[in-house]
Amino acid sequence: MPLVRIDLQRGRSKADLKAILDAEHKILVQDFGVPVRDRYQIVTQHDPEEMVIEDTGFGIERTDKFVMIQVTMRGGRTESQKQTFYRDLVKELQTNAGVEPNDVMVVISENGSPDWSFGNGDAQFLK
Amino acid sequence: MPLVRIDLQRGRSKADLKAILDAEHKILVQDFGVPVRDRYQIVTQHDPEEMVIEDTGFGIERTDKFVMIQVTMRGGRTESQKQTFYRDLVKELQTNAGVEPNDVMVVISENGSPDWSFGNGDAQFLK
Amino acid sequence: MPLVRIDLQRGRSKADLKAILDAEHKILVQDFGVPVRDRYQIVTQHDPEEMVIEDTGFGIERTDKFVMIQVTMRGGRTESQKQTFYRDLVKELQTNAGVEPNDVMVVISENGSPDWSFGNGDAQFLK
Repeated sequence: MPLVRIDLQRGRSKADLKAILDAEHKILVQDFGVPVRDRYQIVTQHDPEEMVIEDTGFGIERTDKFVMIQVTMRGGRTESQKQTFYRDLVKELQTNAGVEPNDVMVVISENGSPDWSFGNGDAQFLK
Repeated sequence: MPLVRIDLQRGRSKADLKAILDAEHKILVQDFGVPVRDRYQIVTQHDPEEMVIEDTGFGIERTDKFVMIQVTMRGGRTESQKQTFYRDLVKELQTNAGVEPNDVMVVISENGSPDWSFGNGDAQFLK
Repeated sequence: MPLVRIDLQRGRSKADLKAILDAEHKILVQDFGVPVRDRYQIVTQHDPEEMVIEDTGFGIERTDKFVMIQVTMRGGRTESQKQTFYRDLVKELQTNAGVEPNDVMVVISENGSPDWSFGNGDAQFLK
């Protein structure tokens, strides 16, 4: 279910891009308990001047490998589940996609069951 | 009012793109009862490796004609209105824009009246 | 904190783009009281046929300089704060970025404290 938007700078290989998407999806399935085919990822690649990413004063260094991950999903996940997701995600991206934890930002937005039509004009979550 | 983001693969003609936008807007006006000039559509076109779209296990086949439609609008629409919108939208896209129902996904996010400024620095819904 | 997505037509210089981003961020900091390094802006540039922007019937003229600003932030800002933000933003964009008030639209979506990880796998707002 989650719709995942991933924004990053142009210049990565297709293999690197795939590694990022695979890592994100693996942790999503693991930590939010969604089906393995619950995968909806959209990447937009940007020129450097199109992304200005700082750190709110948290002392987090950014590089040109920065990845913004915006997740839209149904409400119902707990604080604890989200925290686990953040923690596991940076580890997986570091280990298997060459993205350092300081270059990973996640923003979640929630909606409801009537807000999803996965295809064929149905509202699958209402059935 | 709705802000509609449409993501799809590169390669469609301008006429095909226009047909998709026209179809989406027609059903939006019809089923959500918004003014005909309540039209705010933003398309982003992607390379194939930038979109990974599966089916949650619902058995929905995807092609390279897949269209993701993300709608941000004020709350207040009912479940029934949303279901009608999904159903009518896939029919219209199939009939007039050459997009099959299995290639149409919709995600809705809601906000409130203070969250919209359509121009000139005003919050038009608060007036 | 706010994640700010900015969509506009291709064709502006890097300097013009920077002026828009600087103007938006200046007013964000000023009117929402966020830290000066609380800056997360992502621009996507579009071909003309990728953006259809009308006016809901409010009589707002659009040009090819139109700028869509979509803000995702934690809830808690008042109606009044948002109205001030809209008003100040169009003035700043007009004065310092060459964008007229009729070409500025803002849409806000809100989420919660658990929904933000700024880096390192932490949920910084929960600490």
